[in-house]
Amino acid sequence: MNTTSRQIEGYDYGSPSLEASPVTLHELELLKQTVGWSSDDEKYLRLAGEVLAEQARVIVDHWRLQIISNIPHLARHSKTPEGEPLPDYAARSGARFEQWIRDTCLRAYDQDWLNYQHQIALRHMEQKKNLTDGVRSTAFVPLRDIIAFIPVMNETIKGYLAAKGHSAMDIEKMHLAWCKSLQLQMSLWTRSYMEPKSTHLQW
Amino acid sequence: MNTTSRQIEGYDYGSPSLEASPVTLHELELLKQTVGWSSDDEKYLRLAGEVLAEQARVIVDHWRLQIISNIPHLARHSKTPEGEPLPDYAARSGARFEQWIRDTCLRAYDQDWLNYQHQIALRHMEQKKNLTDGVRSTAFVPLRDIIAFIPVMNETIKGYLAAKGHSAMDIEKMHLAWCKSLQLQMSLWTRSYMEPKSTHLQW
Repeated sequence: MNTTSRQIEGYDYGSPSLEASPVTLHELELLKQTVGWSSDDEKYLRLAGEVLAEQARVIVDHWRLQIISNIPHLARHSKTPEGEPLPDYAARSGARFEQWIRDTCLRAYDQDWLNYQHQIALRHMEQKKNLTDGVRSTAFVPLRDIIAFIPVMNETIKGYLAAKGHSAMDIEKMHLAWCKSLQLQMSLWTRSYMEPKSTHLQW
Repeated sequence: MNTTSRQIEGYDYGSPSLEASPVTLHELELLKQTVGWSSDDEKYLRLAGEVLAEQARVIVDHWRLQIISNIPHLARHSKTPEGEPLPDYAARSGARFEQWIRDTCLRAYDQDWLNYQHQIALRHMEQKKNLTDGVRSTAFVPLRDIIAFIPVMNETIKGYLAAKGHSAMDIEKMHLAWCKSLQLQMSLWTRSYMEPKSTHLQW
């Protein structure tokens, strides 16, 4: 995984120069309790990672080319403000999107993971959205659309989880772990999105 | 449903005195596109409503008594700051929780629904959490825990959706519609939670 990582432009997972997450490891532990996280989820998420790793490109293409591209208010985030395509930006952010699938399943949820969660959120926000790739595009991806797109990802991932002939029960357990992880990540990203409102944070 | 509604204390769905949602109907339409909402979802959510309506009490008890009560940082929100139980508060908010299941499945997602979504969010926030029932409890329910608890609700609802002998495919479609609706609602609630930061809202 590390070898892959080095080849992805703008992917600096684990870099000591990354801003620390505003969320502590203790808060993460409590969040895992809220989401109902278990050792089974950890195990089945690893299995999901084995199943999904090689399919990551196809999955991201499915989401982007078959779904997002048909929804103008989502598709605009990979284009210029005038609506022109940005192929290099799409390719670079797409490669990181693929890596995110692998990271979701295969990374330890430790401080580095927490920091990179914050980084991913920032890269959807005005703080960093276009900075990483030096492009001119929409200023930010609204939090509402990130959260609302989750059911689409959770539904479409089912077919890919089933692609290697695992039992229906194993697929269901992989899927449950996947859904829990995505929601846990959403929970973390809302913290980043609410960050500037530091005086009265109800996160 | 209206008859039931009138008997629930603090339940003022559709009241003209409710604060208008900060989200417009047009924004809701776009969010439905993001979530992949279809006429099938509408149909199967109605069916889910028929299946779940009479089970609402059992479902809420399942969530609260079997799960939330075992997680101290969640259970505290129905208690005094000193950790004493508040049975009346639990009963009143529990009845509204049950009604929320029915509303999720059976209400039209119109301006009244949107306004009440905002109201529900406010009742989890400092603005209104203890006000509706005149109690002394935690000041607010953190957004992170509301979002992170969704997978638990989505997972446990499966058994209740299956309780009336529908086909596996119908149950799956009801479940998908349920998951989409909950995520749509989360998306709306983040707007309320981010509301005070009006100068630079990346919602």
